[in-house]
Amino acid sequence: MAKFLALTVSFRFAFADEKAVSLENIRVVLVNTSHPGNIGGAARAMKNMGLSRLYLVDPEDFPSSEAVARASGAADILDAAVVVPTLEEALIGCSVAMGTSARDRRIPWPLLDPRESGSVCMEQAGQGAEVALVFGREYAGLTNDELQRCHYHVHIPSNPDFSSLNLAAAVQVLTYEVRMAWLATSGQPTKQEKLETTSMLNAQPVTADELEHYYAHLQQTLVDIGFLDPNRPRHLMPRLRRLYGRSGISKLEMNILRGILTETQKAVRGEPHKRRSD
Amino acid sequence: MAKFLALTVSFRFAFADEKAVSLENIRVVLVNTSHPGNIGGAARAMKNMGLSRLYLVDPEDFPSSEAVARASGAADILDAAVVVPTLEEALIGCSVAMGTSARDRRIPWPLLDPRESGSVCMEQAGQGAEVALVFGREYAGLTNDELQRCHYHVHIPSNPDFSSLNLAAAVQVLTYEVRMAWLATSGQPTKQEKLETTSMLNAQPVTADELEHYYAHLQQTLVDIGFLDPNRPRHLMPRLRRLYGRSGISKLEMNILRGILTETQKAVRGEPHKRRSD
Repeated sequence: MAKFLALTVSFRFAFADEKAVSLENIRVVLVNTSHPGNIGGAARAMKNMGLSRLYLVDPEDFPSSEAVARASGAADILDAAVVVPTLEEALIGCSVAMGTSARDRRIPWPLLDPRESGSVCMEQAGQGAEVALVFGREYAGLTNDELQRCHYHVHIPSNPDFSSLNLAAAVQVLTYEVRMAWLATSGQPTKQEKLETTSMLNAQPVTADELEHYYAHLQQTLVDIGFLDPNRPRHLMPRLRRLYGRSGISKLEMNILRGILTETQKAVRGEPHKRRSD
Repeated sequence: MAKFLALTVSFRFAFADEKAVSLENIRVVLVNTSHPGNIGGAARAMKNMGLSRLYLVDPEDFPSSEAVARASGAADILDAAVVVPTLEEALIGCSVAMGTSARDRRIPWPLLDPRESGSVCMEQAGQGAEVALVFGREYAGLTNDELQRCHYHVHIPSNPDFSSLNLAAAVQVLTYEVRMAWLATSGQPTKQEKLETTSMLNAQPVTADELEHYYAHLQQTLVDIGFLDPNRPRHLMPRLRRLYGRSGISKLEMNILRGILTETQKAVRGEPHKRRSD
């Protein structure tokens, strides 16, 4: 019984840990958005990055079929969106709010780049806190009053001569950095390499002795076809060694290269060749 | 004369170095795009991130007013876009091509995440090489043949259950990482903090003795307003010290806090108060 209890406890701790870095702790807040297409684009970007909690502060046109069209499969995010009249209400329950800002402000504020913003999101979420990423109007951004309700400002380091990103594009960049930080925090890879049977063979590197057999075979073949003069070899073989040596050749690739040499030799000798079927 | 020549030479070397990490070495290639709005969105994302060279392989609808509308100020990128019939032609002059891929492929290929892709772009550009970021069709991506023309595949680590990003959003993520890598390579900050006269004062941290004066003043004020009982102080002051101690208070902020205390004490004593004008 004691053993059973201990197991239960450890399981619950593991679960709590998992919840601690949940992307559910991150909400995206769009303030006074003009174009419903941008709301849809933002929803799609969020879902692509594994986020789901969308807050809309006084949107000009929502719900909207244009938002659904641009969401392209992320309509569930739109359906679950919380529409509120003020930023204050959108931030209820949040410990940290980050406001995106393209402009220089009179009052300097703690400023993060998107990567730092992703890290802070994960730090906070790891402590069970909720974080809001706040995005302003398409043309005017956030007001000073709104920016001062945010604990941090986030600036996407854009081209100073053309600095204003499309709203959905800005949501994409920040949520991408949240996901990158989340993957790092939860020990998940940022890329998936699927290996199958043939690729296992493919991935297995050739050994030095196999490479030497190949060089010998290659050299003989080059002699056979009249490309290499054994009496005046010049730097041909060292150059080929350098090329293949740095290529990280796999066993499968070696088989292919050796096959080519064998068939070349046969062809030179006038023997019938067999075509490779793959 | 020799001195003059030496100066010229060093100037030219400096110039060459600067060119070496030019974003001009990076081109964006969109293959067989269906929606002109996405071409416009991609152009805007590129210009936001400081890129300018757009190649369009057999676009379905280009030029297009919808592309111009979505480009929103990046029409110059569209005007200068190179339209070609095949991917092969779009890659002429490139040493490295990176193809974006959402799907798992049969043949594993050197795979990068977007951050690594940005680094490789800068490594290559630093050697004067040209790099292509290649993006496929909205619904079908790149074909296997097209992917095999690329040296690397880039996968944006999206939600496995909803992995396909909008085309312009994908361009935004990759070009953002190129810009982040470029800023790092060229020693530029990823965020700009503009400090003015008041903010210089603001940024100057308060000293320990100033903080002690503040705590004494705060304690006295709390006694004055009847919040702190000197005979039963409990943990109030340590808690306030912990709060202010970790806040990294500046001299300007200290002035404000001290002003509040002074005015509070006056108000408690029934003295006339003066309103702060800022």
